[in-house]
Amino acid sequence: MSRPLPFDVDPWSIGLSGVDLDRLPHRESVFALSNGNIGWRGLLDEGEPHGVPGTYLNGVFEEHPMPYAESGYGYPETGQSVINVPNGQVIRLTVDDDPLDVRSGTLHDHDQRLDFRAGTLERTLTWTSPAGRTVRIRSTRLVSLTHRSVAAVRYEIEAVTEPVAITVQSELVANEPLPDPHPDPRVRDVLEKPLRSAGSFVLDGLATLVHETRNSGLGVAVSMDHVVSGATVDVQTAASDDLARTTIRAHLAPGERIDVVKIVGHEWATELSVPALRDRAEAAVADAMRAGWDGLTAGQRDRLDDYWACADVRVEGQSRLQQSVRFALFAVLQAADRAERRSVPGKGLTGAGYGGHIFWDAEGYVLPVLTATAPDAAKEALRWRHATLDHARARARQLHLKGAAFAWRTIDGRESSGYWPASTAAFHINADIAGAVVHYLRATGDVDFEREAGLEILIETARLWQSLGHTDADGGFHISGVTGPDEYSALYDDNVFTNLMARANLEAAADAARRHPDLARSFGVDDDEVGGWVRIAQAVHVPFDEKRGVHPQAAGFTDLERWDFETDTADGDLLQERYPYFHLYRKQVLKQADLVLALFFCTDAFTAEEKARAFRYYEALTVRDSSLSAAVQAVVAAEVGHLELAADYLAEAATIDLDDLHGNADDGLHIASLGGIWIALVAGFGGMRDVADGLRFAPRLPAQLTGLSFGIRWHGRTLRLEIAPDATTYRLSTGEPLTIRHFGEPLELVPDAGVSAPTPPRGEAGARPTQPVGYEPRPFEVALGE
Amino acid sequence: MSRPLPFDVDPWSIGLSGVDLDRLPHRESVFALSNGNIGWRGLLDEGEPHGVPGTYLNGVFEEHPMPYAESGYGYPETGQSVINVPNGQVIRLTVDDDPLDVRSGTLHDHDQRLDFRAGTLERTLTWTSPAGRTVRIRSTRLVSLTHRSVAAVRYEIEAVTEPVAITVQSELVANEPLPDPHPDPRVRDVLEKPLRSAGSFVLDGLATLVHETRNSGLGVAVSMDHVVSGATVDVQTAASDDLARTTIRAHLAPGERIDVVKIVGHEWATELSVPALRDRAEAAVADAMRAGWDGLTAGQRDRLDDYWACADVRVEGQSRLQQSVRFALFAVLQAADRAERRSVPGKGLTGAGYGGHIFWDAEGYVLPVLTATAPDAAKEALRWRHATLDHARARARQLHLKGAAFAWRTIDGRESSGYWPASTAAFHINADIAGAVVHYLRATGDVDFEREAGLEILIETARLWQSLGHTDADGGFHISGVTGPDEYSALYDDNVFTNLMARANLEAAADAARRHPDLARSFGVDDDEVGGWVRIAQAVHVPFDEKRGVHPQAAGFTDLERWDFETDTADGDLLQERYPYFHLYRKQVLKQADLVLALFFCTDAFTAEEKARAFRYYEALTVRDSSLSAAVQAVVAAEVGHLELAADYLAEAATIDLDDLHGNADDGLHIASLGGIWIALVAGFGGMRDVADGLRFAPRLPAQLTGLSFGIRWHGRTLRLEIAPDATTYRLSTGEPLTIRHFGEPLELVPDAGVSAPTPPRGEAGARPTQPVGYEPRPFEVALGE
Repeated sequence: MSRPLPFDVDPWSIGLSGVDLDRLPHRESVFALSNGNIGWRGLLDEGEPHGVPGTYLNGVFEEHPMPYAESGYGYPETGQSVINVPNGQVIRLTVDDDPLDVRSGTLHDHDQRLDFRAGTLERTLTWTSPAGRTVRIRSTRLVSLTHRSVAAVRYEIEAVTEPVAITVQSELVANEPLPDPHPDPRVRDVLEKPLRSAGSFVLDGLATLVHETRNSGLGVAVSMDHVVSGATVDVQTAASDDLARTTIRAHLAPGERIDVVKIVGHEWATELSVPALRDRAEAAVADAMRAGWDGLTAGQRDRLDDYWACADVRVEGQSRLQQSVRFALFAVLQAADRAERRSVPGKGLTGAGYGGHIFWDAEGYVLPVLTATAPDAAKEALRWRHATLDHARARARQLHLKGAAFAWRTIDGRESSGYWPASTAAFHINADIAGAVVHYLRATGDVDFEREAGLEILIETARLWQSLGHTDADGGFHISGVTGPDEYSALYDDNVFTNLMARANLEAAADAARRHPDLARSFGVDDDEVGGWVRIAQAVHVPFDEKRGVHPQAAGFTDLERWDFETDTADGDLLQERYPYFHLYRKQVLKQADLVLALFFCTDAFTAEEKARAFRYYEALTVRDSSLSAAVQAVVAAEVGHLELAADYLAEAATIDLDDLHGNADDGLHIASLGGIWIALVAGFGGMRDVADGLRFAPRLPAQLTGLSFGIRWHGRTLRLEIAPDATTYRLSTGEPLTIRHFGEPLELVPDAGVSAPTPPRGEAGARPTQPVGYEPRPFEVALGE
Repeated sequence: MSRPLPFDVDPWSIGLSGVDLDRLPHRESVFALSNGNIGWRGLLDEGEPHGVPGTYLNGVFEEHPMPYAESGYGYPETGQSVINVPNGQVIRLTVDDDPLDVRSGTLHDHDQRLDFRAGTLERTLTWTSPAGRTVRIRSTRLVSLTHRSVAAVRYEIEAVTEPVAITVQSELVANEPLPDPHPDPRVRDVLEKPLRSAGSFVLDGLATLVHETRNSGLGVAVSMDHVVSGATVDVQTAASDDLARTTIRAHLAPGERIDVVKIVGHEWATELSVPALRDRAEAAVADAMRAGWDGLTAGQRDRLDDYWACADVRVEGQSRLQQSVRFALFAVLQAADRAERRSVPGKGLTGAGYGGHIFWDAEGYVLPVLTATAPDAAKEALRWRHATLDHARARARQLHLKGAAFAWRTIDGRESSGYWPASTAAFHINADIAGAVVHYLRATGDVDFEREAGLEILIETARLWQSLGHTDADGGFHISGVTGPDEYSALYDDNVFTNLMARANLEAAADAARRHPDLARSFGVDDDEVGGWVRIAQAVHVPFDEKRGVHPQAAGFTDLERWDFETDTADGDLLQERYPYFHLYRKQVLKQADLVLALFFCTDAFTAEEKARAFRYYEALTVRDSSLSAAVQAVVAAEVGHLELAADYLAEAATIDLDDLHGNADDGLHIASLGGIWIALVAGFGGMRDVADGLRFAPRLPAQLTGLSFGIRWHGRTLRLEIAPDATTYRLSTGEPLTIRHFGEPLELVPDAGVSAPTPPRGEAGARPTQPVGYEPRPFEVALGE
């Protein structure tokens, strides 16, 4: 953990004073704005100093060769990396002769604040130039939730004590140099200046840069226009290949202001001509110009009011946790709201970490939150997966498998992982995707989506499992040589998580095919095939270690040598940075929840006692080197009655990005881990499980919280829970009555009438499970600092 | 299999007429000359046309970056590749105005012949130039077995019908362009022109080029001098950075000849000044000049007479097999005889295949042959391994293991494999090395070697196993997550071959430490440590599949899905070129003998019935995509009574390189597979096993052979067997009597007196085991073409 930035604590925003030059990248990640289509990292307006410049469009990437020391059949030969599109954030200011730079002159005050309800990033500063001229700046920035191609900045300059001549250079900058060039020259050559100019245009003050990528064949157009008010002398706009600039000159008397609104439009496409692409970007700008700054900010607030009305989670008793969960929900919404036929990369659009790739955690950790709070965004992410089916089918064929094998990491759907034991062999991603389809359908009843995309995903993944596994002489169905979620194990037989998820996948495919027999038939599914899925689903082998009374993570896992934490001690670094993979793989040590994730995702496959034993067993082996682990451990800890431990894990999840616990928040926020904060609260202390027979809750608060409230969308309605230590009140918004289960007992909810149910007495959970030495979570109070 | 070259069949040589321009690389590999220190591929004297120019010095390599799509802890960052040193083979001839080129003019006859007793490659040709001038050329080439730094060529030119003016350019050429540049530009940049000139010198007709490698820090000096006799006009010598040239001009009347003897000296070092290195190379040349051509050729013949006196294997009944086994023995000797503190790369010095790396097959397949036929060369190869112990210890520490972890593939001892599941995790190499030490000690009783190198190797490898394995609650010792010899499996627990070899390693270390307690103590070994080795050796777990009555290759292997050869059929390509590794790894399909290798190497760990059952079981799963497999299958097939199947496998082994069965003989001969021919005959039909209680034989001929004779060195003596269908005659050269076992019965041999023992009746072996469809070996008669 690096030294945390001193963000302030506020229930509906997060702010930071001063400029710590060493920690700029982390600031930029936290203050990133996005709508799921455009991502603007939280750079200072003037562009420099900066940590990692970043302006991303969801789906814009470049291809590069993938190098191997020793290559093999089926290794992807082409990698994908998110690239920067032209940066429209830049607004440079010169005061008399001095360019505004926080490193020069005197910075009297500097504050940035991300507002979760306004959907804006505001910055204020007062600066005296080396020549002694003082200006006050206020910049407000948004990435529009209502205009998906538009970001905007309002930049206000006030002369404080002396008259000043100011020059504002508002720019679009392409091919900015990035820190840390890739070590492989073949990749570096491609990514260093990824964009080739295809045209630059100025028309009546509206400037546009059109670029193309060299290998991935994408066109990108970014346009800008301005509204300037105040004591302006003149405004000029020019554009060349990699730079468009509007120059605004003004003379300000003390107390006088100039107000610049910059509207930036972003478009990209695979198959558009330069004129068409330019026109789209310029149309987006024109449309936003008509709405104006007030229209854009009002749109932000409207969308967010609507979002928070259901999605808000209220936490009583811990203000930093309150801030964290709202930050998390805001980040998840930003990552997805206007993605539209795109999904959520591991770091959203807040940084270029993980190459901008989309992983299984989109379906595993982000879609549950979206399904419950912004189901249309969940649908769009799944529609994107569906759109990659051709790639997934081709990959399955290449792997000599049937159906579809979705990419482990990708931007456009093609496999871009070069380390197959922890990627191609991690077939569970296919069941995770199928599971997200099932959860979305349960939560929405969206038959149109099921027919458009869901059914086909379920069928093709079921076919994959059928071809991947095999039936032994005794009829048991086995899946050999695959990798589960835990990345410190690989290529084991009968990974329990994988097998159970595959079983659910097969069952869901059979159910869906029976619901839509004609459509299923159009995909070549007949009764025999469905019968086959049902048969192998019933025959799925789930290994159990009778001697130890626990489910092994995979066959034989519990017989492996246990990691010796006394000798191979924790030292703050990831184990994978200190030990070779083969060493991690062959020992009992977990990077992240795997069997424990199965306890959560496949809740009905285990008895309560099995869950309790397994949780205790794997707690002693799990080092949480993955940001995906703490939230799941919180959920299961809560379920098996270790509520205070669950609270500690929740606190860890809540601080991973804000305290940069994993040391890599510089290149973006962990969107899945942020989703995990919500999961830890809702599935953990709310005890929510959406299973085939409906919604279940088992709300129970840890000592650290005095109240918890959250809402979920369910078939177009909102269900809100108000959880107090002794009882929970359920409140349904509209429509027909709904029966849920409260601690296993049916509870009928009618609209607009709160129903309260008592919290049953807490059972005996036994001693607090222990973690490996050095891997105990920080106590809730310590982690959250109150 | 590509179209075989039409080599002729001769008992003591191999020859080829004509020049097939498409198949030059294969010719160059087969006709390569080497003494284990220098390797000259069988290029045409005039340098072009060529397939793959190759002049190698054992140990001369360049380093280059190792690329990874996703790197990890412990991945080697630096690769090693053998490079060409300055090529001294080139002798270009101009006849009047026309350069001799087999592609121009008229080539009346062209023959090359490698002579196993003369140790020379002879070439004769008659050529008429485009201008109608006819010359006859005879070139004889050798790489000296008596002068380890020297190669020499005698080049004779005769004018046939008309007077001709001839110019001979005899050269040293550095940094020749190679075909197929490496795809990675970082590697290509390094390997394209690997040598940097450090000086070029001419002194009294003696020319020397000195070069340095850029990264690996090696210096290389190559010198040449000439003896010219005949109608010479003049001789001039000049040298520049990458070229030294001696130009000889002459006028030949019809029937007149000129005779050029070229002596080339090669030296390299890590830490010599340019003058010192130059002096060494020039001293080698001067020394060989004193010996003269006749001295060099006499030296060849003497060394080879001595070698063949013991090593010769005589096969009755199949002349192509007779040629093959002598070719193999000649190739093995060439690969090692003067290596001196170096070992045998996978392709010897016959090509740059496998990067010029040394693998486990040096100890597994080549050293058994050398130990029995040229034990000093075996010792030198083991001394080289010993010299890499510091690298191996450092690697073990990096892997968090004790002792030494020898490199899977290397030139200088550092790990150079970039694909760890089939390399770093294939820890059996360490036991293979220890096993080679044990066999060498048994065969020689070389206590000096044991004290100098053997003991330390045994100790450090025993320490590795102790730290790599773990003891379970019931006391069983397990080695988890490792890879055995079969490269279509990886990362399994308790690989039987590995576990048994580790057991032998531990026992051998304990024995040796007890034999040399003081020396062992100097390596930090105390009684406790030895006791620990003995304890875990006794506790080594050997899994057995009770249900099927066979040893699984590794724990759980026999429960995996069997490869479906009906669906995934043979098509001539390697499975690894058509299926991803994870797919191969998780199914019952073998690239090469693994458990069957254990049946051979660890002969006493199995009952005869277990061997028979296991052989049959694995026959049905083994595709022999490795050139290392057929020989071992031959050995075990013979042991379990399937003699005709053994003969088929022997025939396959015997034709792998000459018929280019694996399609990659172009970049060098498979030295281990050539060693396998000897192994198949000696351990297969001779039934030889050198075990702790002495030598055992069980000689039995297949129907295809009417007689077999071979000799082995044993404690400085020669033991020769003459095997006939009904009896075997054993003949010991000198010294004390020796007791061996013949079919389990003790047989005392006294020097110089043949002892004959009858072949017992052949038992019932059952039906011939079947191979996967499409993977049956060619019948002996078909493969060998008689």
